Amino acid sequence: MKAQLGGEEGKHKFVLKTPKGTRDYSPKQMAIRERVFTAIINCFKRHGAEVIDTPVFELKETLTGKYGEDSKLIYDLKDQGGELLSLRYDLTVPFARYLAMNKITNIKRYHIAKVYRRDNPAMTRGRYREFYQCDFDIAGQFDPMIPDAECLKIVHEILSDLQLGDFLIKVNDRRILDGMFAVCGVPDSKFRTICSSVDKLDKVPWEEVKNEMVGEKGLSPEAADRIGEYVQLHGGLDLIEQLLQDPKLSQNKLAKEGLGDMKLLFEYLTLFGITGKISFDLSLARGLDYYTGVIYEAVLLQQQNDHVEDPVSVGSVAGGGRYDGLVGMFDPKGRKVPCVGVSIGIERIFSILEQRVEASEEKIRTTETQVLVASAQKKLLEERLKLISELWDAGIKAEILYKKNPKLLNQLQYCEETGIPLVAIVGEQELKDGVVKLRDVATREEVNIRRENLIEEIRMRTSQL
Amino acid sequence: MKAQLGGEEGKHKFVLKTPKGTRDYSPKQMAIRERVFTAIINCFKRHGAEVIDTPVFELKETLTGKYGEDSKLIYDLKDQGGELLSLRYDLTVPFARYLAMNKITNIKRYHIAKVYRRDNPAMTRGRYREFYQCDFDIAGQFDPMIPDAECLKIVHEILSDLQLGDFLIKVNDRRILDGMFAVCGVPDSKFRTICSSVDKLDKVPWEEVKNEMVGEKGLSPEAADRIGEYVQLHGGLDLIEQLLQDPKLSQNKLAKEGLGDMKLLFEYLTLFGITGKISFDLSLARGLDYYTGVIYEAVLLQQQNDHVEDPVSVGSVAGGGRYDGLVGMFDPKGRKVPCVGVSIGIERIFSILEQRVEASEEKIRTTETQVLVASAQKKLLEERLKLISELWDAGIKAEILYKKNPKLLNQLQYCEETGIPLVAIVGEQELKDGVVKLRDVATREEVNIRRENLIEEIRMRTSQL
Repeated sequence: MKAQLGGEEGKHKFVLKTPKGTRDYSPKQMAIRERVFTAIINCFKRHGAEVIDTPVFELKETLTGKYGEDSKLIYDLKDQGGELLSLRYDLTVPFARYLAMNKITNIKRYHIAKVYRRDNPAMTRGRYREFYQCDFDIAGQFDPMIPDAECLKIVHEILSDLQLGDFLIKVNDRRILDGMFAVCGVPDSKFRTICSSVDKLDKVPWEEVKNEMVGEKGLSPEAADRIGEYVQLHGGLDLIEQLLQDPKLSQNKLAKEGLGDMKLLFEYLTLFGITGKISFDLSLARGLDYYTGVIYEAVLLQQQNDHVEDPVSVGSVAGGGRYDGLVGMFDPKGRKVPCVGVSIGIERIFSILEQRVEASEEKIRTTETQVLVASAQKKLLEERLKLISELWDAGIKAEILYKKNPKLLNQLQYCEETGIPLVAIVGEQELKDGVVKLRDVATREEVNIRRENLIEEIRMRTSQL
Repeated sequence: MKAQLGGEEGKHKFVLKTPKGTRDYSPKQMAIRERVFTAIINCFKRHGAEVIDTPVFELKETLTGKYGEDSKLIYDLKDQGGELLSLRYDLTVPFARYLAMNKITNIKRYHIAKVYRRDNPAMTRGRYREFYQCDFDIAGQFDPMIPDAECLKIVHEILSDLQLGDFLIKVNDRRILDGMFAVCGVPDSKFRTICSSVDKLDKVPWEEVKNEMVGEKGLSPEAADRIGEYVQLHGGLDLIEQLLQDPKLSQNKLAKEGLGDMKLLFEYLTLFGITGKISFDLSLARGLDYYTGVIYEAVLLQQQNDHVEDPVSVGSVAGGGRYDGLVGMFDPKGRKVPCVGVSIGIERIFSILEQRVEASEEKIRTTETQVLVASAQKKLLEERLKLISELWDAGIKAEILYKKNPKLLNQLQYCEETGIPLVAIVGEQELKDGVVKLRDVATREEVNIRRENLIEEIRMRTSQL
């Protein structure tokens, strides 16, 4: 049996790796990840959100027709008899399915979970095939732009709180985009595919996007050029006012609606005091099919060292928007539930913080152990076990070395390495005297504490830590 | 575009459900789940564990040959080009892969994550296809049975802490089982498959297990009968002593080793004061292939209402054991890292607690909101937004209704329904006077608080909650 389980015959030719685009998190990485999650969850709770969870996979048909050109990136499960399943691609579609299935028309919830995309990973830049999304969404029929403004406030709070440096939140509206496409002469049937092309503007130059529109997607060069003029525009309330006066756009019903709401949004953002980091940007398109109104995306900015130019974007860390039609796609009667939400992508944020920790040589503790139960002499394992059992039962975080007769030096070194602040030392004399020697690892001070007072003493000493 | 996104044409024939054997967690269920996780994580941290995370899927070959007859329950991903992947079946094999891959020979870690098994779900009894495991493992070369005893202490602490009623932790050792098989006349090649049969004894009667051993697996009826006598035995130190004197077993090297270690284990468990809930049980086999030493399983006991018989088991809630060969299966040179661990299954625990909450009519809050920012008059949306923004920025958990002119009654009802304890009311007069009316929802008392003192007042009032 031992042979079967990896004895000498166990020299298999395993490829020892995680699947492409995925990774493990070590204890140190988990400690950093927890900091990020705590900041995000605190913000979501500050805004009164409940929390839900959904399965990692959905019926394949639940995901069908929701993601446009990105659908090819969905992971399918093998057909092993039974239902056809796919791994979730985001948390928004499962949320909409959850609302329709449970006939919920009004909820503010967050959901933090991993999603899956068969994309080309760029792991050094924080792009993975398995990655976390932290979603906050408000579902329900409400007065215009109040929940939308809160979503942007949330992005602003989280990015400020995490101290990631300068950032910019770009805002646009699908109705403004569609109105713009209409007045530029894009046929209705090409709206979504042209929108996908515009979405690439943050990664490739305009000329390339234009080539795709004209060459691949059959748009006239004139229409493309007209789009090219609009998508250069970005600004604030002034730009909104200007476009409301635009002779062509102002004639388009959708664009006018979108611009009206954008103005209202900026008024609310002014009350929140956050317009300094918000840019109304006509080039923002967002890839996903399901958006129907306001859309937004937050990017981190990096001051170039050797340039006096504007700071450049180092990538998107949050995005979202309004999707008023998605829940209706799941409802047997097509009943809609208006929704708006935001998704924080932590992988890039995590990369930045991890690099910062590495650079700072900050020592991160990966356990919370308060005390090591040690002995200076041999044959005291039983006494160590009795003492640590008392400590555990009193809620003290305590460890022992798993050796019958560990050397005191090794026990002290273990504390130094792992950051355990206290050592409770049992010895023959201490046992006779009914005391335990409590050692402060940092100062090396040792005091005898009566056994019955030990728990209280440890609690007191570690409460300030 | 709206039509595409679930307008009138959106009346699709969707099957609105989660995949077979899976479920969503509602906010209320999440609140209960968080309580369970908190108890478990607190215990793991109390014992000095670090935390890691691994991807939800592994290379298919990583899981191959680790689970014996249960391998057929593994979910495979569809071959979409690239690597062949499977969803993790447990957290133990990914842990072993992690250790081998990172050449870690010494770690104490916990990992809480979902695992996947294409089993026949019995969701009312807490058996799912997607379910959480909460694993604690100690890897490293240590003196015998010290880490093993700690794992049992952890199970005891968690089950006591969660107040799930009476429980029993059954303990056995694979070496004792194998020794027993040998002295009963089971050929070496049939050890694992006969072990799988014994594993069914907690669900089916001995006669059925015997039929499987003899009929399906070709064991002689005499050998089966000899096994049948041993597997009835359960007890404590007395039984260990008795078996150490057993004329056949005491001649078998493996059994003798196992019994010697079992005796040591019971000595340590006596020091921990937990032998009252531990039973050395020769019928405990555990299904998985990779165990090499001590194995254990915790079951909840239920006193039968109308019987004076012994309490009956209502199912396993934790299990684990020693697997000294698994890491070596992944190491190119077969280098072993001894490991022992325990896995807490929360689904059944969760079911019990959920039923208890339902029965008790305990009201569970699903948000932590401290204050609702409200207004008694119309046209005060801007003032509400300004105030709530101040509160958010000060770290106060606050909500508003997303209406331009909500009725005061609706605002107060929202607080009653969701358990928000305070309402901060802005009105024309309050604005003039530089105050906010702070209302205690429970007592209906209202006091004017100067605006500059509001944050302090809310903090003070909600700190006792």
